[in-house]
Amino acid sequence: MEQIARLIKNADSIIVITHIAPDGDALGSAFALGLAFESIGKKVSVYLEEPVPRMLDFLPGKHLVVDNTDGTWDLAVCVDTSDLNRLGKGSHIYKATLKRVVIDHHTTNDMKADGLWIDKKAAAAGEMVYSLMKHMNIKLNHDIAINLYTAIATDTGGFRYSNTRSETHLIAADLLTFDIPFADVAKKVFDTVSYSKMELMKKTMQNLTLHCNGKVAVSWLLNDDIITVNAQPDDFEGLVNIGRNLEGVEVSLFLREEKPNYYKGSLRANDYVDVAEISSIFSGGGHMRAAGFSVEGNLQDNIKRIVAEIEKVL
Amino acid sequence: MEQIARLIKNADSIIVITHIAPDGDALGSAFALGLAFESIGKKVSVYLEEPVPRMLDFLPGKHLVVDNTDGTWDLAVCVDTSDLNRLGKGSHIYKATLKRVVIDHHTTNDMKADGLWIDKKAAAAGEMVYSLMKHMNIKLNHDIAINLYTAIATDTGGFRYSNTRSETHLIAADLLTFDIPFADVAKKVFDTVSYSKMELMKKTMQNLTLHCNGKVAVSWLLNDDIITVNAQPDDFEGLVNIGRNLEGVEVSLFLREEKPNYYKGSLRANDYVDVAEISSIFSGGGHMRAAGFSVEGNLQDNIKRIVAEIEKVL
Repeated sequence: MEQIARLIKNADSIIVITHIAPDGDALGSAFALGLAFESIGKKVSVYLEEPVPRMLDFLPGKHLVVDNTDGTWDLAVCVDTSDLNRLGKGSHIYKATLKRVVIDHHTTNDMKADGLWIDKKAAAAGEMVYSLMKHMNIKLNHDIAINLYTAIATDTGGFRYSNTRSETHLIAADLLTFDIPFADVAKKVFDTVSYSKMELMKKTMQNLTLHCNGKVAVSWLLNDDIITVNAQPDDFEGLVNIGRNLEGVEVSLFLREEKPNYYKGSLRANDYVDVAEISSIFSGGGHMRAAGFSVEGNLQDNIKRIVAEIEKVL
Repeated sequence: MEQIARLIKNADSIIVITHIAPDGDALGSAFALGLAFESIGKKVSVYLEEPVPRMLDFLPGKHLVVDNTDGTWDLAVCVDTSDLNRLGKGSHIYKATLKRVVIDHHTTNDMKADGLWIDKKAAAAGEMVYSLMKHMNIKLNHDIAINLYTAIATDTGGFRYSNTRSETHLIAADLLTFDIPFADVAKKVFDTVSYSKMELMKKTMQNLTLHCNGKVAVSWLLNDDIITVNAQPDDFEGLVNIGRNLEGVEVSLFLREEKPNYYKGSLRANDYVDVAEISSIFSGGGHMRAAGFSVEGNLQDNIKRIVAEIEKVL
């Protein structure tokens, strides 16, 4: 961290870069860094290839954004990114800048940099930005606190995921002293649902059936359902949880038709079933309680086969 | 707090009481107090009129529960309860016990006690129990931490409601040092949905229509929908938010048929509409962003009238 602090101190102009399709941690961390560097007198830009997503357009710091790769800077700071390919055209800036810093919390990271700081235990890149600011004695303020709160809340599912640490809450406690509208942030980040997503949720509920005495929930979406509502890629996120969250359910299976007779399957378990093992029967993989696979053939036949495998381990 | 500490120290046997239909804060606070008193050598009971709700049956401390009002204790400690009527038969115990303590965070509280401690700023009674334990130098442990975490998470909507304070996160930071399964707690408390509730959610989505360029969402449930799925009272909670959470929506209106041609209405706003004012037009009331009322007559006619009033202030 000290080496990174020195690189920052020695730079007059800094460009902050993060991954494409940025989430709350990526954008919040990038804007927090940008505002922090600005506050200590640096010439700062934040490179974003895409417009700020509507859900996150409340984040302060948009005045720092540049959307072209022209210009040169003394230092490039890349945050929340594990791989050069995830930078989009920002990779050109990164490669062309003389001094480079990486701040990241992903498990794997193959970036090259003059200052490389990876903390796998950090729940969010925003936690690392907070620590760096403390280390450099850069004062927090209201706008930086909103960005860091959004970063940390996003990547911890609002302090609910198991990556949340005691330190995470200590940081949140400090951020709340800046009188930030955290309840509004949470509402915007966690509760907002697109119309197309609601349509997919509704259809998922309509198709949902219970099996094995209510311990297994099964649902699916056909390609027609998806096309009709003009669904976006992130609309599918969490649909498998509709079944998983039902009282009494241990395993939820969700199938999505990608092309005729070809389905992407998601499995979730609540307490004890190892769904990675079930996925492996269908040449898929994943974690103990969250796994995925693909199957071909008739939908209902596939469901019967998969549920039969689940039933064996209930 | 010092007076309460003294009353506790002077008692050999203590009964802890909380309100009927106990939520996570009530039960978590009651069990945390019970376990804390037990750890300093007191003879402790926790009185519960009803069985522990299934969603909360993971809370440690059930061995302390008594479900009858027989027995006498030196001290009754009543937590998270603002009103004697909310104690059910527990009020008999409370009235019959010689020394009495009240620990509560409700805005109004008309309980009589030898030690009365009301902290309206506390997000949860669990925060007060935590402070009391610190004050009395009672050591936290894993089981007490689970109870306090559940108490605080429940009443703050997982640190998302505006009642969450910087102190709330400081307490959570301390509780997480006891290696508690907070992610499982969050999943159980926030994500679990009953089958009947999912049916109501589905129906609410099916009936949902957008008005005023997508700024107003309207939905409803008929009594038949409710009876068919054998809905429980708490299944209705949050159905108005399905519309409120839709991207672009400012006001959500939800109507529930209570008897033929008689509807209970809920209104929610996101950012700027004062729905208390709209409710007052229909002889209802509430807060700026959350209000309610009742209307008689034809469903669609009522929707037209209400939406017309909303449209005026958009």
